[in-house]
Amino acid sequence: MSLLVIGTVAFDAIETPFGKTDKIIGGAATYIGLSASYYTKNINLVSVVGADFPLSAIEMMNKKGINTQGLEIKPDGKTFFWSGKYHIDMNTRDTLDTQLNVLMDFDPVVPESQKNCEFLMLGNLMPTIQRKVIEQIPVRPKLIVMDTMNFWMESMMDELLKTIAMVDVLTINDEEARLLTGEYSLVKAAQKILTMGPKYLIIKKGEHGALLFNNKQVFFAPALPLEDVFDPTGAGDTFAGGFIGYIVKSRDVSFDNMKRAIIYGSAMASFCVEKFGIENLLDLSDEQVENRVQDFIDLVQFDIALVN
Amino acid sequence: MSLLVIGTVAFDAIETPFGKTDKIIGGAATYIGLSASYYTKNINLVSVVGADFPLSAIEMMNKKGINTQGLEIKPDGKTFFWSGKYHIDMNTRDTLDTQLNVLMDFDPVVPESQKNCEFLMLGNLMPTIQRKVIEQIPVRPKLIVMDTMNFWMESMMDELLKTIAMVDVLTINDEEARLLTGEYSLVKAAQKILTMGPKYLIIKKGEHGALLFNNKQVFFAPALPLEDVFDPTGAGDTFAGGFIGYIVKSRDVSFDNMKRAIIYGSAMASFCVEKFGIENLLDLSDEQVENRVQDFIDLVQFDIALVN
Repeated sequence: MSLLVIGTVAFDAIETPFGKTDKIIGGAATYIGLSASYYTKNINLVSVVGADFPLSAIEMMNKKGINTQGLEIKPDGKTFFWSGKYHIDMNTRDTLDTQLNVLMDFDPVVPESQKNCEFLMLGNLMPTIQRKVIEQIPVRPKLIVMDTMNFWMESMMDELLKTIAMVDVLTINDEEARLLTGEYSLVKAAQKILTMGPKYLIIKKGEHGALLFNNKQVFFAPALPLEDVFDPTGAGDTFAGGFIGYIVKSRDVSFDNMKRAIIYGSAMASFCVEKFGIENLLDLSDEQVENRVQDFIDLVQFDIALVN
Repeated sequence: MSLLVIGTVAFDAIETPFGKTDKIIGGAATYIGLSASYYTKNINLVSVVGADFPLSAIEMMNKKGINTQGLEIKPDGKTFFWSGKYHIDMNTRDTLDTQLNVLMDFDPVVPESQKNCEFLMLGNLMPTIQRKVIEQIPVRPKLIVMDTMNFWMESMMDELLKTIAMVDVLTINDEEARLLTGEYSLVKAAQKILTMGPKYLIIKKGEHGALLFNNKQVFFAPALPLEDVFDPTGAGDTFAGGFIGYIVKSRDVSFDNMKRAIIYGSAMASFCVEKFGIENLLDLSDEQVENRVQDFIDLVQFDIALVN
């Protein structure tokens, strides 16, 4: 029941209408790993950081059940750094600074003992790097989930499409689904994307929830209406981490179970945005998670008994 | 089990990325009445038109179970006219022309025999006119539902607040909820609005669904993901019509039943946007409506059995 996670481990500096941070721990793989750790403790991380990355953060991950054997530490490198500022609506942001640093020539190496992973989560990263990881796994995992973003669509669409063709589940946001297909209608965009390789597509709509498609069915999960969204950074990764974590825990890759996994992923994302960075993902109790899932059940459940 | 509907009966000229119409029949009360007519045949309409309004449209309404005794026809007046053009995203539109015509000095008169209505639906209209209707009803209806829009918030907030204070359910969209309260968070906006008089608030989010609040609970209903949204005109009114129509039919004003009513309203709205104007509301079968409601059930249902 092992989960292999690849993605960035990073420093972020974030500014929102509610405040700003200095460099804090971030990165897609960090959020994914922490979120998944609430459902499984057999998580292996493949990523890269520089010598400036604090050991305490690595120890924190280890304590959470995230094995960092595959986290390369470049002694003469600097950790990937991203800085951004959110607008008042929290749905849009400006990137203030991006320093690729050690990511520039990252050549991922999956430790020998981790190549038998049953589940593979490809966090947002260059699609060529994501593909290199897939190619190192000798036996096809039960499920390969891939997250990506508009940046790769604009800069290396051909490489991106090659990687997309190799995965089972693609997660992107609504604008990216439109960009990837040229279709404004998300239903039509989904139909096109499901001919590109993935059997499942998750379209993330931020505060407007998420859609899950296969070629026959569609499922919608709302986002929880929150009094305040404090910092949306990492919400999509946290969602993906909860999604794959729940699937690893339940070992069930059916559409019906993916629906549950999306609810668990949405619950984790709702915690994420309530505080800055990864802060709110560090010490949730099982009860807090279950109560949050119950909030989702209460939010959408209704009983209509149709005659037919 | 009578429903009194007040609102505009109008001509619209609509332009969308998919085409444009000449003058067609529109108006909030028209959409509300037609949508509600799928659930109840005891509908009384109070509105005003000019001599240019076609009798055939009035006959069409009558056939649908909409009593037009309260529809004043001004022999020397022209019917309210609105013209608008939708942007590619269909969520925003420009008003090209508004001719108030007979609405300018509309003084609504509820026919004596209709003053004992059990349910009152106030479609979007000047809040002073909405209030005049409430004041003509001697015995408080079981439920008063009010729709309104940003225009009145910007031009006559005081009058609007007086009317809002008199109703049970307010329906507005997300931007209007923010405008009405100065709160960006919809949860905070809802809390404020629920101190203004209404016991229930419905926030319509267009393609992103709708939220129902009372002071303890919140319910979310998605919009159905459609291949094409052809013309959003009247979708909000159609939603309101399905909502109140279902409540009239079921005679149940509990929160749980309002949840069902919102699903039925959403189903009606999903039909509305598939064709221009009221076209798709004219001849739906019961089976089509039930199948559409089933689509909503399928879209959001999941089973998670929590331990606690």
